[in-house]
Amino acid sequence: MFNSIALVGGTHGNETSGIQLINNWKKQGIPQRFNALNVALTIANEAALEANVRFIDEDLNRQFTMDALNTPRASKEALLAQSINNKFGPKGNAKTDFVIDIHNTTSEMGATLIILEADEFHIQLARFVKQQMPEANILVEDEKPYLEHGYLCTTGKKGVMIEVGGQPQGVLREDVYLLTQTMAEAILDFCIAYNNQQIETDALPACEAFRLGKNIGFPLDEKGKRIAMVHHALQDNDFKPLLPGSPMFRTFDGKDILWQGEKETYPHFINEAAYFKLDVAFATSERIML
Amino acid sequence: MFNSIALVGGTHGNETSGIQLINNWKKQGIPQRFNALNVALTIANEAALEANVRFIDEDLNRQFTMDALNTPRASKEALLAQSINNKFGPKGNAKTDFVIDIHNTTSEMGATLIILEADEFHIQLARFVKQQMPEANILVEDEKPYLEHGYLCTTGKKGVMIEVGGQPQGVLREDVYLLTQTMAEAILDFCIAYNNQQIETDALPACEAFRLGKNIGFPLDEKGKRIAMVHHALQDNDFKPLLPGSPMFRTFDGKDILWQGEKETYPHFINEAAYFKLDVAFATSERIML
Repeated sequence: MFNSIALVGGTHGNETSGIQLINNWKKQGIPQRFNALNVALTIANEAALEANVRFIDEDLNRQFTMDALNTPRASKEALLAQSINNKFGPKGNAKTDFVIDIHNTTSEMGATLIILEADEFHIQLARFVKQQMPEANILVEDEKPYLEHGYLCTTGKKGVMIEVGGQPQGVLREDVYLLTQTMAEAILDFCIAYNNQQIETDALPACEAFRLGKNIGFPLDEKGKRIAMVHHALQDNDFKPLLPGSPMFRTFDGKDILWQGEKETYPHFINEAAYFKLDVAFATSERIML
Repeated sequence: MFNSIALVGGTHGNETSGIQLINNWKKQGIPQRFNALNVALTIANEAALEANVRFIDEDLNRQFTMDALNTPRASKEALLAQSINNKFGPKGNAKTDFVIDIHNTTSEMGATLIILEADEFHIQLARFVKQQMPEANILVEDEKPYLEHGYLCTTGKKGVMIEVGGQPQGVLREDVYLLTQTMAEAILDFCIAYNNQQIETDALPACEAFRLGKNIGFPLDEKGKRIAMVHHALQDNDFKPLLPGSPMFRTFDGKDILWQGEKETYPHFINEAAYFKLDVAFATSERIML
């Protein structure tokens, strides 16, 4: 049973669509069909929002490992993480049943549901969302146990992320906003159905998903400067197959660098602005069925 | 005659395409056909680039009015403006014949040449660029005299801006990069032709251009909070006609707000991230022939 749900925007202060949805629902009330759910609406990082930046000192959405939470530090986001963990968690023994954290990306990832476990519950959730929103993508980041992630949503007993793009930082696009709202509503619809014991094993059809592989960095010279950019054939093609021998980068002197994997991969977070300083060009994934 | 040209990137530190072009040409040399021109390659705001932000204290590209230059202030960008003005200018009595300042925008403006005067010289330049690059847009900001603008490029005897989009801040897209390079080369090709007296009045066909009107703000509530977003029918349609009665905003409770002008306008800088904090939704313009 979901007795308490936290719907969160503004974990990154320049990701406007989640912030706007939270503010609109605070003002208008959440849609009436969710009245049976106890949904708390939260803006996570007001200071970052005010400054129109991703974070003030460090990325809030990496501050929720057990280690980080148990090692008090003085950065704005480390302190904020403590306070959020006290509110929703404490992580591992949480008051909150389900934390849904809303993000957006400059990558053309459409409406993506990120789940951190591929257990029965999350499989049913993914299938339900995909049935209501066939255009949605399901991304599975289960490369480590749920509680080892540093994400804000892991303060809940269960936690997922909504990730919608492409949208520039600090900009609100109507299409991205509406996809965000539709996915948030689909997840809450699932919670109602789950509480009403309307979700039966194998009643929903299996669905396509993508399991996170690894980050692929930009090619750098000996001084650490980039020598290439994302190839136009890859740009904006998130979750499309990148075949062995297909171009992924173009160097500034006009040469193509090819994907050398043994089989196709499904890139995502292609050319995401927030990973630019880290020189991450995209993440790989494998197509699976849930 | 153009004896000295300054090609500038990084006036805004998170506009990557101009920065990358300058760095690549510094490394590879500028294309050989421009050897006859004396082109200085400059990164304007290294500190903002390092921080991956538009500016540190205030917008550098608004610090070049005569008033601002003659009123010493202590902000990082005010000091930087003094130094740039000493290097290229002084404004009004400039050492540099032509300053070409490269920008990018989150708006879908394609490759846009911004000129600040619609005199014979700039008309020929616009026609030449448009002939080499039919996909280019020409934007005319001549609502006040050249020297009254606060733009960096006005430190030169003549100055123009290259503005290419859509590209998120802090991201380099190959398509935007290539359009930027093509337009920079077209302008330098014009300089060569001009120096060689190959530009004859009325030899080039007249071209379409857009004359800046005014900024249109987002609708706000009594507390100054937005109540609407750019309508999906307007989003990404920079320089396309917006007809009287066409939707330009959608309110968060689902109503359309229509363009009430007496005739069509040609919006641009639609939903530009840098103007988000200013609550500017787009700028209007009138279609003219040059």
